[in-house]
Amino acid sequence: MMLRTLTILCCLSLSISSYSQTDEEVIKKIYSTSLSNGQSYDWLNYLSNQIGGRLSGSLNAEKAVAWGKEQLDSLGLTKVWLQPVMVTKWVRGAKEYAYIQSVPGKTTTVNICALGGSVATPALGIKANVVEVHDFEELATLGEQNIAGKIVFFNRPMQADLINTFEAYSGANNQRTQGAAQAVKYGAVAVIVRSMNLRLDDYPHTGNMHYGDLPENQRIPAAAISTNDAELLSTMLELDKNIQFYFKQSCKQLKDVQSYNVIGEITGSEFPNDYMVVGGHLDSWDLGDGSHDDGAGIVQSMEVLRLFKKLGIKPKHSLRVVLFMNAENGLRGGIKYAGEAKQKGENHVFALESDSGGFTPRGFSFECNDAVLNKVQDWKSLFKPYLIHYFEKGHSGSDIGPLKTDTNVLVGLEPDSQRYFDYHHTKIDTFDAIDKRELELGAATMASLVYLFDKYGVK
Amino acid sequence: MMLRTLTILCCLSLSISSYSQTDEEVIKKIYSTSLSNGQSYDWLNYLSNQIGGRLSGSLNAEKAVAWGKEQLDSLGLTKVWLQPVMVTKWVRGAKEYAYIQSVPGKTTTVNICALGGSVATPALGIKANVVEVHDFEELATLGEQNIAGKIVFFNRPMQADLINTFEAYSGANNQRTQGAAQAVKYGAVAVIVRSMNLRLDDYPHTGNMHYGDLPENQRIPAAAISTNDAELLSTMLELDKNIQFYFKQSCKQLKDVQSYNVIGEITGSEFPNDYMVVGGHLDSWDLGDGSHDDGAGIVQSMEVLRLFKKLGIKPKHSLRVVLFMNAENGLRGGIKYAGEAKQKGENHVFALESDSGGFTPRGFSFECNDAVLNKVQDWKSLFKPYLIHYFEKGHSGSDIGPLKTDTNVLVGLEPDSQRYFDYHHTKIDTFDAIDKRELELGAATMASLVYLFDKYGVK
Repeated sequence: MMLRTLTILCCLSLSISSYSQTDEEVIKKIYSTSLSNGQSYDWLNYLSNQIGGRLSGSLNAEKAVAWGKEQLDSLGLTKVWLQPVMVTKWVRGAKEYAYIQSVPGKTTTVNICALGGSVATPALGIKANVVEVHDFEELATLGEQNIAGKIVFFNRPMQADLINTFEAYSGANNQRTQGAAQAVKYGAVAVIVRSMNLRLDDYPHTGNMHYGDLPENQRIPAAAISTNDAELLSTMLELDKNIQFYFKQSCKQLKDVQSYNVIGEITGSEFPNDYMVVGGHLDSWDLGDGSHDDGAGIVQSMEVLRLFKKLGIKPKHSLRVVLFMNAENGLRGGIKYAGEAKQKGENHVFALESDSGGFTPRGFSFECNDAVLNKVQDWKSLFKPYLIHYFEKGHSGSDIGPLKTDTNVLVGLEPDSQRYFDYHHTKIDTFDAIDKRELELGAATMASLVYLFDKYGVK
Repeated sequence: MMLRTLTILCCLSLSISSYSQTDEEVIKKIYSTSLSNGQSYDWLNYLSNQIGGRLSGSLNAEKAVAWGKEQLDSLGLTKVWLQPVMVTKWVRGAKEYAYIQSVPGKTTTVNICALGGSVATPALGIKANVVEVHDFEELATLGEQNIAGKIVFFNRPMQADLINTFEAYSGANNQRTQGAAQAVKYGAVAVIVRSMNLRLDDYPHTGNMHYGDLPENQRIPAAAISTNDAELLSTMLELDKNIQFYFKQSCKQLKDVQSYNVIGEITGSEFPNDYMVVGGHLDSWDLGDGSHDDGAGIVQSMEVLRLFKKLGIKPKHSLRVVLFMNAENGLRGGIKYAGEAKQKGENHVFALESDSGGFTPRGFSFECNDAVLNKVQDWKSLFKPYLIHYFEKGHSGSDIGPLKTDTNVLVGLEPDSQRYFDYHHTKIDTFDAIDKRELELGAATMASLVYLFDKYGVK
């Protein structure tokens, strides 16, 4: 009697779970599985601690490609392949060294690192007086008479009272990306840039910089200085304009080398020729192990497809995970992927990137039309139990950017941004700065959005 | 000409800021000031690093009282005073020691700590066989024949797939609080409790436990074991039921001692006899320095009044900050404060507590009637720029709990909860686990809610 009741109950429950799962139930399973039986944290442990920092063109980047393919191969996807792409190869060389000299013989060592793409200093380093500026207007006002022969010190802090720290980053990082190209116009011999960091600490933050079309023999070296040392340098300059700054770096731009995007696909059951992409970038800067930037996005994206397979969710559209190569200093992987998709006439209706760190997810930024955003607003209540509340227009992701069309939907995962620039592009962007649950919540949040867009379409 | 225009503009801007500040503007100033010129992080640095862990009745707790009063004295409040309260004094004594013995002579050291309120083991420690259980029903089913003379090992993990980690805590912590009192019924000689921790690591988590009305001579020692070691112990038990567990702890309950709540007040301009309270608890466990639990809540509460003073916001109601003593093992401060308020007929219309860690604030939990909650929902748009989105009924805070009446409003700050139980009651609840911006956002969020309730009333 008891047994028969149980059997009936089991059948009922099976039939419910097989044929009439509500969206609430599916999303609950996605979150539960990611939090209780997730793979993302173990994957990231391997990528960060067994491979480590993986700058484009490096041996580690190639190891990461092989690892990514091997892991995707193990998931039972429809297909997995490598997409060749030529990438930038810049190498840091020996560790940088810098000091401030107040009077001859009296020096204070400071923490710097070369900016990605910078030329080296002369082999014996460079020593010069310093002029502190805060923006390009001030630079122009000072002009050649105040700048020629000196090191320009860009010291505009990120704005602390902006709530979204990426806004504060956008407001400060032209110093890093264009500072050298601007300063050289007035005869500067080098630039030192305050690190893109909202707090005061000793870690210099690297990141890309560009010389524009400046001929190679006119390029000047560019380095980042830690925020503590930027404050020190500024104070010392206030006391004495004649102090000198010395630094030495031996970085080098080499020839482009062959690398790969890593791609896995579950072919769609109804619309196999319409593609949905989730991804992040597989390369990282070289100082840390790239756990937040963007190891987190890589393993979360892989986890989306793993969750679909594990929970038996069969996507209607072809669902791809793309581990993009060379986001940090070239974006070649993203450009190559979109170019080839266009060439082959692959209709990419949706792409979602995670490249803002592995912190507690808060929601998404959308590049799409108003109709789609309205539809997304209707899904808000599905996300409420998971404290996902942010659904606004905004930047999606650098790697998926080249996929934009008039009609498709590009999305960026928006994790809590408060701690991101504590780690970004530094030697402390390491696995121990990742919280397992926060990472897993991000993967589940991505998978849930992909599930809804796949089920209800992208129009 | 230029000067005159500037003068006019200045007057205009002054008149706007003095007489017609919108709520948006005030709240923006609150956040900007907390993030750009906040005091909370520096205060916490002192409390955590210069004073440290401050268990009720300890010398450090008394230092914290003196420090709290001194800091409040410096803010130019209407008045600051100490409210005497007798508190529990329990001391840990020498560091605990424990091992698992599989065969005679073969031992594996494991990480434990005494639970607060526990009795010591005998001076030479206690060694016995172990029986693993997961809840009190299983304990009852096993009964005296399986338990007498043994150590009961409570090993029910916190549930990983609950999004709010405090829910997972509530679902597991009766093992800690009541485990000993339950196990002793069946003749257990001691209890070992899996730490209240969602991740696997080596840190045991202390916390309060109670024997109920069990006579002193029947009380058995209770300790927490790290999650890694709980897993180890469980695995070893599976392989061999006859392994033995040894531990030694020398903790002790002493006589109650005199301590204090620290209170500061800005007397209200319109309703001086109606009180609004912000607070946290000044005492902490002894293993770490209590930065998240609850140094963060202390400095955020102090910052609320400092922001009011600094921004010239004159509260209509009397606004008090209360640094409650003895939350962790007695709640004597909260009970004393509410008792005296009642005795004096002080009408407490509102109280807000921060006691869930110094993480990114997400919103508030309210104990109030529906009308008040509806009113709060109207303020949602004011909080949206700061990503504050959670406004629901729920637990407010332990220290303010005794203030509850039928008509007043009790509120708890709700920070992101994902990382809280990584640190809670452990030796790694230290200042380095605090993010400055997250802490400051919490203070600003509290100040903004207090500003709105003060301005628009609590009905």
